[in-house]
Amino acid sequence: MLKSNGERLWASLMAMAEIGATARGGSCRLALSDEDRAGRELFAHWCSEAGLSLSVDPIGNLFARRPGCDPDAAPVMMGSHLDTQPEGGRFDGVYGVLAGLEVVRRLNDLGIQTRKPLEVAVWTNEEGARFTPAMFGSAVFTGVMCLDAALAVRDAEGISVAQALQRSGYAGSRPLGGAVDAYFEAHIEQGPILENNAKSIGVVSGGQAIRWLDVQVEGQAAHAGTTPMALRRDALYGAAQMILAVEQVAADFAPQGLTTVGELSIAKSSRNTIPGLLNFTVDLRHHQDQQIAAMQRQVEERLQAVADQRGLKVSINQHWASPATPFDSACVAAVQQAVDGLGYPQQSIISGAGHDAILLARYCPTAMLFIPCVGGLSHNEAEDVLPEDVRRGADVLLNAVLARAGRVA
Amino acid sequence: MLKSNGERLWASLMAMAEIGATARGGSCRLALSDEDRAGRELFAHWCSEAGLSLSVDPIGNLFARRPGCDPDAAPVMMGSHLDTQPEGGRFDGVYGVLAGLEVVRRLNDLGIQTRKPLEVAVWTNEEGARFTPAMFGSAVFTGVMCLDAALAVRDAEGISVAQALQRSGYAGSRPLGGAVDAYFEAHIEQGPILENNAKSIGVVSGGQAIRWLDVQVEGQAAHAGTTPMALRRDALYGAAQMILAVEQVAADFAPQGLTTVGELSIAKSSRNTIPGLLNFTVDLRHHQDQQIAAMQRQVEERLQAVADQRGLKVSINQHWASPATPFDSACVAAVQQAVDGLGYPQQSIISGAGHDAILLARYCPTAMLFIPCVGGLSHNEAEDVLPEDVRRGADVLLNAVLARAGRVA
Repeated sequence: MLKSNGERLWASLMAMAEIGATARGGSCRLALSDEDRAGRELFAHWCSEAGLSLSVDPIGNLFARRPGCDPDAAPVMMGSHLDTQPEGGRFDGVYGVLAGLEVVRRLNDLGIQTRKPLEVAVWTNEEGARFTPAMFGSAVFTGVMCLDAALAVRDAEGISVAQALQRSGYAGSRPLGGAVDAYFEAHIEQGPILENNAKSIGVVSGGQAIRWLDVQVEGQAAHAGTTPMALRRDALYGAAQMILAVEQVAADFAPQGLTTVGELSIAKSSRNTIPGLLNFTVDLRHHQDQQIAAMQRQVEERLQAVADQRGLKVSINQHWASPATPFDSACVAAVQQAVDGLGYPQQSIISGAGHDAILLARYCPTAMLFIPCVGGLSHNEAEDVLPEDVRRGADVLLNAVLARAGRVA
Repeated sequence: MLKSNGERLWASLMAMAEIGATARGGSCRLALSDEDRAGRELFAHWCSEAGLSLSVDPIGNLFARRPGCDPDAAPVMMGSHLDTQPEGGRFDGVYGVLAGLEVVRRLNDLGIQTRKPLEVAVWTNEEGARFTPAMFGSAVFTGVMCLDAALAVRDAEGISVAQALQRSGYAGSRPLGGAVDAYFEAHIEQGPILENNAKSIGVVSGGQAIRWLDVQVEGQAAHAGTTPMALRRDALYGAAQMILAVEQVAADFAPQGLTTVGELSIAKSSRNTIPGLLNFTVDLRHHQDQQIAAMQRQVEERLQAVADQRGLKVSINQHWASPATPFDSACVAAVQQAVDGLGYPQQSIISGAGHDAILLARYCPTAMLFIPCVGGLSHNEAEDVLPEDVRRGADVLLNAVLARAGRVA
């Protein structure tokens, strides 16, 4: 098994973090901002040093190519993103890009040729912090979103993506899409599971199914001092019971089922008025489509039962849904074989967050690997990782990609 | 038992409702506005017709006096307020003032003299919709609030109470306070109890004790997709359990105990973030001070138990508290004897809302009577009452006041 140069990778991560560095140790490189451009330029400089050729597509996705021996072979692609949240960390996205660069650098060190070409991709606007929706770089690449729609998106100041691309010089001409042999993305976990289980590597089997529900509960607003308890139809007491029922659904589908009520707002609330109308959201997750459908049915039935019991009216609307995304078994096996060969502490894991790889998985054979982040913390300036895990993740990526691309003797 | 002239009283209520009439059948006479002044002038006109003498104190409270035979006797006072909510109803407050006027008119009709003088009071700014706090007219009269503080209060446009009184011509010179033999206030219930029990009259035994608590719950914000249920410290799931515990406290102190959670807000909420910090309010009511103290202890203990069970931090602060206000037993008995003599359907009731009488009760012997309002609805343009109940309430007030003031043969 080959090993990467962990110190070089760490130094590159720290150098990239200086661009848009924030006071509390994080980074701010909003998509297509001056800082994002500076980050891309640093990456491009390193790619040139490594002998890679660069190309940019019309949505600003950046590709650094290392040729293979087979001129007809589609590339094995690695990558992630360089843009960050406004108070972002130093590793979210950046790790996948620079681990890909380290793979190439290490192959150069060792003079190893591959049959298939390699490409390191930087996807535009993964975070969605400046432009909504998130991940439109990979969405346009894979045909999920049309280019014109993405170009027309505007930020809070009214600047369109088309204008921002022109301004940054990243409106490229490489044709969108094209054949991809396989896509491998390394990423920090952005959750606490690996750290909690003392694992260095998560072999990601796919992305969860997600359902977002909007719930409205209607009772009767009334005076808190003059209305006997027995005559009340209190929307919040009802909602409290409903929210605990939502929590119970997670318990009934444990451990894969996750439920969250993230938002709740009471209409015309005041401290001495019985809540008459309120809204809350429900976020359901499971890695099996059949199971998440069952979870949604359970939520609907239990909320209706609470409403019936309390004389309330409840309406539940599905706001958004995303099916489960199983990754390609051969690509996942390549990651698994690499980590087995290296002997690092590892486990199978599901991706709970959105990633470019979730979109790529519907386009080409795809897999991901996770490394732990300290305290599970992400989207935060205090985001941190252990250098040892950084190196181990790059080792796994190196061997998995080399196996897929074919080492030429 | 004497009877009032229900048709005359109803006609006066409808005439007053025309001043500041709103599109949907309510009234808007914000305190010391042009509409409030017009309402006071109509009342003053009726008082002059009835031979009453008018005086105004420095906070704008208006008193219409009918002399008694005993020149040394303190007055028996009736009254309430003429100001309304912005989208107020036609009866809240107005009923107590015009029922008092009807008592005087009816005594005039019948040529009845009383030993003690009678006064009909119009208290300034009961509603608190334009100027905060509510009920400062009766608060200044009774010495609970000092005059200068009330005069310095400003509305949303920066106009002070002193300026508004000057502008409306209601900055009077009658000395504040003075001896009051007794105070009787008729009011709509502003709740559903009387209607629900098919009663025409509520004999009000006093005002409830109130405690307002501010609760903060702190857990750990985290990603809804990447955080296993077992590793979460979800402030909202905890709060839902706490809110049901607050509801249970009302059940344990039924039927006098009332609990309401009127406001809840999640800090930095988003639908795919586990709530890490939230605040909610608790409104506790009971008519016994000892019992409301026990309710508060129960709430504090149960919330702490939920927090301990879930690894959350809870802090509970008392925002405001008002003790129970028992009314004067002799005045309550006078109301009870009047309604017994008249034979109207009636029950004992506690005042759940704030009223000028709650402040007067700490100053002089006080009682109230309620009449039902349709659907318990108040502070609403759709506020409504039955003409029969309007008449019956005035009948009770007439006989109770006459008993207290002493009929001269």
